[in-house]
Amino acid sequence: MKLLYPTSLVLDAQSLEGFSVTLHPYDVKTPIPDEHADADILVTWTNSAANLSDAAKRLTKLRWIQSLAAGPNDVLSAGFDTSKVLVTTGSGLHDHTVAEHALALLLNAARRFYEMRDWQLQAKWPQHLGGPQPDRPKDKFTTLRDANVLIWGYGNIAKTLTPHLRGLGATVRGVARTPGVRDGIEVYSDDKLAELLPQTDALVMILPGSDSTRHVLNADRLKQLPNHAWVVNVGRGTSIDEDALVAALQDGQIGGAALDVFEKEPLPESSTLWRAPNCIISPHAAGGRPQGAEELIASNLRRFLAGQDLKNIV
Amino acid sequence: MKLLYPTSLVLDAQSLEGFSVTLHPYDVKTPIPDEHADADILVTWTNSAANLSDAAKRLTKLRWIQSLAAGPNDVLSAGFDTSKVLVTTGSGLHDHTVAEHALALLLNAARRFYEMRDWQLQAKWPQHLGGPQPDRPKDKFTTLRDANVLIWGYGNIAKTLTPHLRGLGATVRGVARTPGVRDGIEVYSDDKLAELLPQTDALVMILPGSDSTRHVLNADRLKQLPNHAWVVNVGRGTSIDEDALVAALQDGQIGGAALDVFEKEPLPESSTLWRAPNCIISPHAAGGRPQGAEELIASNLRRFLAGQDLKNIV
Ligand SMILES: NC(=O)c1ccc[n+]([C@@H]2O[C@H](COP(=O)([O-])OP(=O)(O)OC[C@H]3O[C@@H](n4cnc5c(N)ncnc54)[C@H](OP(=O)(O)O)[C@@H]3O)[C@@H](O)[C@H]2O)c1
Ligand SMILES: NC(=O)c1ccc[n+]([C@@H]2O[C@H](COP(=O)([O-])OP(=O)(O)OC[C@H]3O[C@@H](n4cnc5c(N)ncnc54)[C@H](OP(=O)(O)O)[C@@H]3O)[C@@H](O)[C@H]2O)c1
Repeated sequence: MKLLYPTSLVLDAQSLEGFSVTLHPYDVKTPIPDEHADADILVTWTNSAANLSDAAKRLTKLRWIQSLAAGPNDVLSAGFDTSKVLVTTGSGLHDHTVAEHALALLLNAARRFYEMRDWQLQAKWPQHLGGPQPDRPKDKFTTLRDANVLIWGYGNIAKTLTPHLRGLGATVRGVARTPGVRDGIEVYSDDKLAELLPQTDALVMILPGSDSTRHVLNADRLKQLPNHAWVVNVGRGTSIDEDALVAALQDGQIGGAALDVFEKEPLPESSTLWRAPNCIISPHAAGGRPQGAEELIASNLRRFLAGQDLKNIV
Repeated sequence: MKLLYPTSLVLDAQSLEGFSVTLHPYDVKTPIPDEHADADILVTWTNSAANLSDAAKRLTKLRWIQSLAAGPNDVLSAGFDTSKVLVTTGSGLHDHTVAEHALALLLNAARRFYEMRDWQLQAKWPQHLGGPQPDRPKDKFTTLRDANVLIWGYGNIAKTLTPHLRGLGATVRGVARTPGVRDGIEVYSDDKLAELLPQTDALVMILPGSDSTRHVLNADRLKQLPNHAWVVNVGRGTSIDEDALVAALQDGQIGGAALDVFEKEPLPESSTLWRAPNCIISPHAAGGRPQGAEELIASNLRRFLAGQDLKNIV
């Protein structure tokens, strides 16, 4: 059996040895060489669209793709025959790094570093942002202490983010497909949003890109948020109606938005988001650094060879 | 006995009742009225320099000043006769809020939000800051995970900050006057700095303003830091030689500096810090929101009336 692994990140191939599988590195930006067209298993990371659609045609023996991305939209839209090829995601490899970035976006929003930067560029001291401040004023988002944070898309990343938010004094609740208590956090289904949104100081979106999540944060739901509430998005850009968001920012209907993902990436120069008030634009920088890929590949490889269910099946 | 409390913050005076002391609100920006010149105890918060120096002359019966600031430099330089007047600080009231801000500054440095902002203002996508990234590259400070953080001034704020840093995967060490292990953290005296600084990815300064801390971070010590190391200061501006810091930033001798405090505040428009590369200027915004002032005042009041040692004596 033959496994191809990408050279687009540093992988310790040695830690994958010991299985009855041959391991071959490949370049993710060019077509896979003919000698490897007989591969059974493909590990992907930042492959070009051309590499993937070519592989979908030529790798006829392929049975399993292990993506290292949490949301392998690239693989899913490349034309692989998913009745024959199993796809597993890199969910879990990005939990820490995306959680850290989401925390950073929340603190930027609360502490207004983006506004400080604008003043700094003019060599001006923003007195209103420093010095004596009211402690946790009502109807403002100035600290995570006692803030109500709602995480929409309460999966692996959310679970990693939550202890940091609670450690800083926030109250955390979640929204997912299946309601219930997870790790002591109340998780609701989306029919409770009309109740939850008005009580929210910061809404953190960590939803995957899918038909069911498309534009779920729309004009109606933005209206349900308090005027001081911030929206953070580290999931997929498609879950927010960006035109509605810009309108909400311009009207002061919400406190601000800190976005790492966008409907179209790179965000086009023509987007009105760039200059919308209280909007923080981060260039899909939350993840992009899979951590522990070898363990996931090895564990799934063992399961695959043993005929067991794989982890992170799409 | 008479206690004067400031109207410059919301204080629940009721929670101070029950002691054999009369409680009187006063305005911190004007001279204390004659009828209160016989006060025994003065609680201060953001008093004007004129108010304090006037009080130092006229409040001849004064025996104790409870400042709500962690570093009551204003009270100490106002001319009170400290052989007669005891001064206690608000150390502890700012731990959470300063720790949150310090964490935010560290994450800003690691995730480079200040640079993202500069690109955003030009409606340009900073591709180099997002997308696939090497995971914890050597000799860069891009995440708190596995980062070596050295906290110089390992007091109350540092103790509150540490669990957040460790939670994100950092290794934390401290420097203080007395070495030893505190809460499981190795704390060194400053004669170990020459060993510690070269191993540091982020140096967090939380030193009080005093003669012994003046310009302790100077050109020599900046040279001992690795070229990628960041300096964060949320203590007092006087602990850093700002000219040496600007030179180090301009020469790329350190990775950057995220500063909340300055030798002169507001930072003068003429300061070269404003435009130094990789410098984040925050307008003394870390603290400024005492939390739990009533408990501290009540507890010290009880001790004072009982003739016991007070908390937070300068
Ligand atoms: N910005 C970046 O750099 C970056 C990096 C990595 C990942 N991401 C994105 O983050 C997403 C989440 O990652 P993860 O690892 O946390 O995934 P995960 O563990 O699969 O969690 C996804 C969560 O979303 C919920 N969900 C899915 N569809 C929903 C819907 N229609 N309505 C309500 N909730 C819904 C799921 O609910 P159930 O639990 O009930 O199934 C689950 O809680 C990824 O899909 C990826 O797109 C972004
Ligand atoms: N930016 C803001 O808004 C803001 C807000 C609040 C406070 N602050 C500043 O933060 C400072 C620290 O606050 P804190 O509550 O953490 O104070 P703290 O509990 O008194 O801690 C001060 C620490 O500094 C150490 N230290 C003092 N002089 C030293 C020296 N010469 N060399 C090495 N270490 C020295 C002390 O060592 P030992 O433990 O060995 O005595 C102690 O660990 C305050 O004094 C204030 O100036 C700033």
